[in-house]
Amino acid sequence: MEKGVILLSGGIDSATTLYFAKKRGCQLTALIFDYNQRHKKEIECARRIAQLNRIKYIIEKINLSWAKSSLTDRRIKVPVNRNLNKKEIPLTYVPGRNIIFLSYAFSLAESIGAKKIFIGAHTQDYSGYPDCRPEFLQSFQKAANLGIKSKGIKIIAPLIDKRKKEIIELGIKLKVPFGLTWSCYKGGRFPCERCDSCRFRIEAFKKLRLSDPLNF
Amino acid sequence: MEKGVILLSGGIDSATTLYFAKKRGCQLTALIFDYNQRHKKEIECARRIAQLNRIKYIIEKINLSWAKSSLTDRRIKVPVNRNLNKKEIPLTYVPGRNIIFLSYAFSLAESIGAKKIFIGAHTQDYSGYPDCRPEFLQSFQKAANLGIKSKGIKIIAPLIDKRKKEIIELGIKLKVPFGLTWSCYKGGRFPCERCDSCRFRIEAFKKLRLSDPLNF
Repeated sequence: MEKGVILLSGGIDSATTLYFAKKRGCQLTALIFDYNQRHKKEIECARRIAQLNRIKYIIEKINLSWAKSSLTDRRIKVPVNRNLNKKEIPLTYVPGRNIIFLSYAFSLAESIGAKKIFIGAHTQDYSGYPDCRPEFLQSFQKAANLGIKSKGIKIIAPLIDKRKKEIIELGIKLKVPFGLTWSCYKGGRFPCERCDSCRFRIEAFKKLRLSDPLNF
Repeated sequence: MEKGVILLSGGIDSATTLYFAKKRGCQLTALIFDYNQRHKKEIECARRIAQLNRIKYIIEKINLSWAKSSLTDRRIKVPVNRNLNKKEIPLTYVPGRNIIFLSYAFSLAESIGAKKIFIGAHTQDYSGYPDCRPEFLQSFQKAANLGIKSKGIKIIAPLIDKRKKEIIELGIKLKVPFGLTWSCYKGGRFPCERCDSCRFRIEAFKKLRLSDPLNF
């Protein structure tokens, strides 16, 4: 069975990517990051999704103390009711986050003999986050393979051209337990329904005329 | 004053690179990694060198639990009296180490507005470690710049074409306190004098007809 590493965050995208990779017959190891993000709820979701699928998971604690992002610095407020069509990098941007996550993924992949790294990056992300763009992923794959012993480790981003609605459609086909995923940046008792992440989720379920199965 | 980030390990190479960068007028922030390496001696050396130069430093704890390297896994012995001319990747290789270190450096550089990242990688390293090769560094610089908001952050490896002897010659000109640097992979009370790192150091000082100022 072919081995793979999956970057798992506990959100809709990485959960769908996990089920996609599983369907392709990959024996997965999940890499979950505790990067001092605003809340631990998504880490718990990621853990539960990994456990449900009986896949090995590693929670890697990293500390980006310098990052001026509303996800890592509690003094910076999470933006709410932002114009989602505006082409700007939001305050939730964490400098180099996927660069770091993918670096760890290459180190882990080489160590366990995996040839594939799965990541849930996609269109709506890369309109705001430079480290979700396909050009970055391609270029990083090339660079990282030059820096390790083994060759030919591939980054696979199956959602790259999809929008949230299409991701959920794919996830439904793959039987992703969306009720176990968490999207809200704030991590309160209930989703805030006003941050970008909540709004993309709500909008997508609405377009699909489905109710969000989120249990909280 | 232009800002820079330096990857500081406590060895001869990164210390020399620090003095090189300082001479070029860079206001440096040192990034020191505690990656669960065999000993903490080099971290203490790095800290002392940073303090001596009154530069800000960050000790970043990372955990590469999966790495099958004699530097991170105490069950794997550090190779001694190896044929240093043999083109092979030694057991001290840590998968993806510089990929991860540089990823953090880009995140930090962008966050503090630094445009330069200094790294002490060089010829004798890249005969063994793929993540010290110039092709890797160039390719990584390109990829990482695609993944962040700011543009034009450069990786500077001033020692890239030098051998240890030439690095020490440069260091002497720059007044690097080599007595404060540590090279031995084992980190005992005294250098083992048999691991690759000790032997490169001993050989270089011998060629220069100098005695090693190391205080232990």
